[in-house]
Amino acid sequence: MKLTILGCHSATPRVSANPTSQVLEIKNHTFLIDCGEGTQVQLRKYKVKFSKIKHIFISHLHGDHVFGLIGLVSTFRLLNRETEINVYGPKGIKELIVTQLRLTESHAGYPIKFHELTSKKSEVIFEDKKVEVYTIPLNHRIYTNGFLFKEKLGERKLDMSAVSKYPEIEICDYQNLKNGKDFILQNGELITNDSLTFEPTKPLSYAFCSDTAYSESIVPIIKNTDLLYHEATFLDDKIELAKTTKHSTASQAATIAKMAKVSQLIIGHYSNRYKSKDDFLIESKVIFNNTQLAEEGKTFEIL
Amino acid sequence: MKLTILGCHSATPRVSANPTSQVLEIKNHTFLIDCGEGTQVQLRKYKVKFSKIKHIFISHLHGDHVFGLIGLVSTFRLLNRETEINVYGPKGIKELIVTQLRLTESHAGYPIKFHELTSKKSEVIFEDKKVEVYTIPLNHRIYTNGFLFKEKLGERKLDMSAVSKYPEIEICDYQNLKNGKDFILQNGELITNDSLTFEPTKPLSYAFCSDTAYSESIVPIIKNTDLLYHEATFLDDKIELAKTTKHSTASQAATIAKMAKVSQLIIGHYSNRYKSKDDFLIESKVIFNNTQLAEEGKTFEIL
Repeated sequence: MKLTILGCHSATPRVSANPTSQVLEIKNHTFLIDCGEGTQVQLRKYKVKFSKIKHIFISHLHGDHVFGLIGLVSTFRLLNRETEINVYGPKGIKELIVTQLRLTESHAGYPIKFHELTSKKSEVIFEDKKVEVYTIPLNHRIYTNGFLFKEKLGERKLDMSAVSKYPEIEICDYQNLKNGKDFILQNGELITNDSLTFEPTKPLSYAFCSDTAYSESIVPIIKNTDLLYHEATFLDDKIELAKTTKHSTASQAATIAKMAKVSQLIIGHYSNRYKSKDDFLIESKVIFNNTQLAEEGKTFEIL
Repeated sequence: MKLTILGCHSATPRVSANPTSQVLEIKNHTFLIDCGEGTQVQLRKYKVKFSKIKHIFISHLHGDHVFGLIGLVSTFRLLNRETEINVYGPKGIKELIVTQLRLTESHAGYPIKFHELTSKKSEVIFEDKKVEVYTIPLNHRIYTNGFLFKEKLGERKLDMSAVSKYPEIEICDYQNLKNGKDFILQNGELITNDSLTFEPTKPLSYAFCSDTAYSESIVPIIKNTDLLYHEATFLDDKIELAKTTKHSTASQAATIAKMAKVSQLIIGHYSNRYKSKDDFLIESKVIFNNTQLAEEGKTFEIL
């Protein structure tokens, strides 16, 4: 599982401060998360193949999270895309894109499937054999969801040195073993599955939480997540401003990480008012030591 | 008069290829012309003060000329703008911006006045004491206008060495002289205006023509312009593609410049298929020698 930060600043884009966008590579998927202005250029800069993106998750309809989407959708067409794209985001996202396509007298030229979200409860919005994606209802000025990306528990791994002791076990039996079944020899002896296989790889999970006020209600949803991105727009010196604007401080992000017992925390969505990001790290580490700063181009790999 | 190129490439923005946007400084105005994705970042990069921009001219509603507008409009609000902004562009531009503001649950917070254009004839769309702006109807796949920015003829300049010979001429008479009036001495003698004043500075003009197929119908409108920007998306090797997509080649841009007897030509809006721009310059110079290439950050000053 690999996360690449394309942009991690709040509000207005600047020369070296791109708005929110991330790419999550998980089980052969390349998920794009949020799409602020300039995201398509960041995708090129960090060599993400446009054709690999089939699912785009938009947390909310504030400009710094979505104004790059119409440009990306248009560029897909110019690149002669034919594959369907799925866009998950708040109700209104379809109108946002469709209106712009109409007024610019353009058409996508490939199918765009909009999955408009309205629920205030966590729900599964994507699922296949290996991955599922849940919404994380957040508390912001506008309807907003974070997203929890979870690998499913995979198959058990064959312990070939054990398996090879039993010539009766043939290749056609392997799938049953991977699925957890015991094996019965012709003499009636039962060979338990755990003596023939290893545990499947631990499924990994990533939770993306931006933008949000401090909200303990998300803790049960993101409990024990391997990697948590939680916005930290402000430091504690602006805790009142965080409250008014429904954003979080670095220490609030760390508190959530600690309560949810996640393994690693990444903070980002920094306000442009702060010159240095060092204080974000310091403030967070006091509460949750395993914190890292989001930085443009930085990747976080969990194996 | 000073023109700054913020972006001069066609179609999809890339790391070093920004879509069309220019800033024209003329008689204390700072006009923004077209606004592709990322324009607000380019404005910061080239240190154009956001507060100085009061008029934005959009040639047409293709994404590479307008997708940066909603971001800029939103950033104006975040910068606590109060001054009115005037947006001139094709019918539909109001809906494009207003829909996005509504869906992002934002409001501009300052007045935005939309001047929606529908005429297929050249018309005056802005005028004050010193400057007037005309549309230049272009021939593209979608309703498109270029813009002709013209300084008005200014006042005559006082020749103070001549004026001071006549003690009867007082300061309160100066404005009449600047306006071209003769002066009559008390003894009835007429002092002609041209013996007391110099010619006003020659008014300058800039014509912006993008995007367009080769179109001789624009020649009368841009005749004798000091500076012409004419799109040159292709070289002559793609003249058929230029025809189909209603774009121009470098030599076609040069032909228009020559026919219109402009002083200087700038070409741009290069297709990303060409690695080097040298051939654009060569192809254009064969027909119109005083050609320069548009390049990001380049300024053209005419005094």
